[in-house]
Amino acid sequence: MKLLKQTLEHIEDVLIDPMGDIQAKFRAFAIPRGSLGRLEELATLYASIKDSISCKIVHKKIFTMAGDHGVVQEGVSAFPQQVTGQMVQNFIEGGAAINVLARHTGAKVIVVDCGVASYLKTHPLLKIKKVGLGTNNMAIGPAMSRESAIRSIEAGIELIEEELVEGIDIVGTGDMGIANTTSSSAILSVLGRMDVVLATGSGTGLDEESVQRKIRVIKKAIDVNQPNPGDAIDVLAKVGGYEIGGLAGLCLGAARYRIPVVLDGFISTAGALIAHAIEPKVNKYLIASHVSGEKGHRVMLNLLNKSPLLDLNMRLGEGTGAALGINLVEAGVKLLHEMATFHEAGVSKPYKQ
Amino acid sequence: MKLLKQTLEHIEDVLIDPMGDIQAKFRAFAIPRGSLGRLEELATLYASIKDSISCKIVHKKIFTMAGDHGVVQEGVSAFPQQVTGQMVQNFIEGGAAINVLARHTGAKVIVVDCGVASYLKTHPLLKIKKVGLGTNNMAIGPAMSRESAIRSIEAGIELIEEELVEGIDIVGTGDMGIANTTSSSAILSVLGRMDVVLATGSGTGLDEESVQRKIRVIKKAIDVNQPNPGDAIDVLAKVGGYEIGGLAGLCLGAARYRIPVVLDGFISTAGALIAHAIEPKVNKYLIASHVSGEKGHRVMLNLLNKSPLLDLNMRLGEGTGAALGINLVEAGVKLLHEMATFHEAGVSKPYKQ
Repeated sequence: MKLLKQTLEHIEDVLIDPMGDIQAKFRAFAIPRGSLGRLEELATLYASIKDSISCKIVHKKIFTMAGDHGVVQEGVSAFPQQVTGQMVQNFIEGGAAINVLARHTGAKVIVVDCGVASYLKTHPLLKIKKVGLGTNNMAIGPAMSRESAIRSIEAGIELIEEELVEGIDIVGTGDMGIANTTSSSAILSVLGRMDVVLATGSGTGLDEESVQRKIRVIKKAIDVNQPNPGDAIDVLAKVGGYEIGGLAGLCLGAARYRIPVVLDGFISTAGALIAHAIEPKVNKYLIASHVSGEKGHRVMLNLLNKSPLLDLNMRLGEGTGAALGINLVEAGVKLLHEMATFHEAGVSKPYKQ
Repeated sequence: MKLLKQTLEHIEDVLIDPMGDIQAKFRAFAIPRGSLGRLEELATLYASIKDSISCKIVHKKIFTMAGDHGVVQEGVSAFPQQVTGQMVQNFIEGGAAINVLARHTGAKVIVVDCGVASYLKTHPLLKIKKVGLGTNNMAIGPAMSRESAIRSIEAGIELIEEELVEGIDIVGTGDMGIANTTSSSAILSVLGRMDVVLATGSGTGLDEESVQRKIRVIKKAIDVNQPNPGDAIDVLAKVGGYEIGGLAGLCLGAARYRIPVVLDGFISTAGALIAHAIEPKVNKYLIASHVSGEKGHRVMLNLLNKSPLLDLNMRLGEGTGAALGINLVEAGVKLLHEMATFHEAGVSKPYKQ
């Protein structure tokens, strides 16, 4: 609790370009005003968070947070539970989609066991932040204790702090956890005060009958546990997951150290919703990489007032959308640093300005 | 005319994954089916065009095609004409947005003088394919002769052929030309058989009064020249531009050598419209990188039946959107080559398949 409390006390609001110097720099570039669109917006946000117009992006880190969910027992996933641990092994070996896209973007993948339901072999590329061996089945009681919920958030904060020495300029979030769309839909329904039906999609590929079962399970979990929508830690404990707590912690920890966070899809955004509910000042540190194909993700982004950078009908998680999003943020920041001005390039200005 | 004719004779249709082996490979990967969304679509298209499941993207080339437009005399641009040549110099010196984004994507920028209104200093990084010293003012007569229109297209084809020796795996298109949104809107209006008002936007930043003038000028140009919508070369000659002909030639030349073309914004897509009207088989070689902020671009993409990868409110041209689009195509192709299968990774499959 001490780490969480300290972290929250140190999160500062972000003032967007308070001196106007970022806008002035873009206006001096030899381009029609505003013609770089959202790339300019991304560069402005990045420089504002860093409080430095000259800060470059060197250390890019994507955290792929893994955890298991007891609710898998209710038949809410198209995949068996052991896939979570198997995919962690795949991440370590570099053969998963997130490894490919992180290499493409020049980002490091940090694989984290937040609460996989088995003991994984130790490996230099695997971080262990295990809060438990999978959560309890939320359809019959709380997914975890309040203490575990806080512990899972603090694990995310610790991950940020552990990377500070090596350097960390931008964070990407990602997830792996069989049945974690079920947990994320429950979080969305409670924090967004919306019908479970509107918050629930087909996850890794459920048929319509199974989606209906998933909806019934989520309704039951909310009914049984009565999570308090005014207390995000209670929501996380009742219907959340260890990796979702970890994702919330990443957002809070990154904000505390003024590091921008590029959110992945549905589960990562559920973690961001928890973080935002705990401390709304975290919001300005968050960038939505994409809107996923998973039903409910767009409304989740709306709750955070975020417009996604990409809409490619991806719905894989792992941090794959975040990897592509980081690439775009970096493009914007490079423009801010590397472009020539009208004056430098000897280019005539428009007739009217 | 001979080069254009030969090129058209050799453009083949693209069969998308005719053996089903690309889809089979994606289905074997340790991911929920279809969860990579449009990245899978891009990889499938790339491999289908190359007719090879193992073909990688190494040589990425963005052609920034520059040309001037006589219609600038009618007050249709926010910038003076000399900016075209000044920006060409900026491209050569590496200080423009396209240079920054091409470096980010690992692409080479090939700067081409298709018809700038002045004689530019020779430079190893500048390709000269000058068809004329700017087009004629289309508001009072044809922008160019039919011979010049064909010559400008053939210049684009030549550019592709000249890069074949070094290698060229993917093409990005880009443009620079003061007043070339005026020409592009005219092309859209004629080939799309639509009202000039719907095809005309604010370009580099015209105020509303100037947009109205631009609309009147385009209407006059169409009225004076009576371009034949059934003859794209006539349309190019009457209301086009040298760089727009060059852009059309790039599409045709790339298709002839089975090289995918990533289109930039409004002007590049106008060139693609010309190419598509000349030879519809070119269509499957084209990828729309983004929808620009310029009015009319989305409807132009619809005419080509293309869904853009990005919507970032960019409206700069130069090839900036294409650079980002190439980055996404490459991400998709890398996934096809580098991911582990369920079997290789030891990951359990879903219950039902």
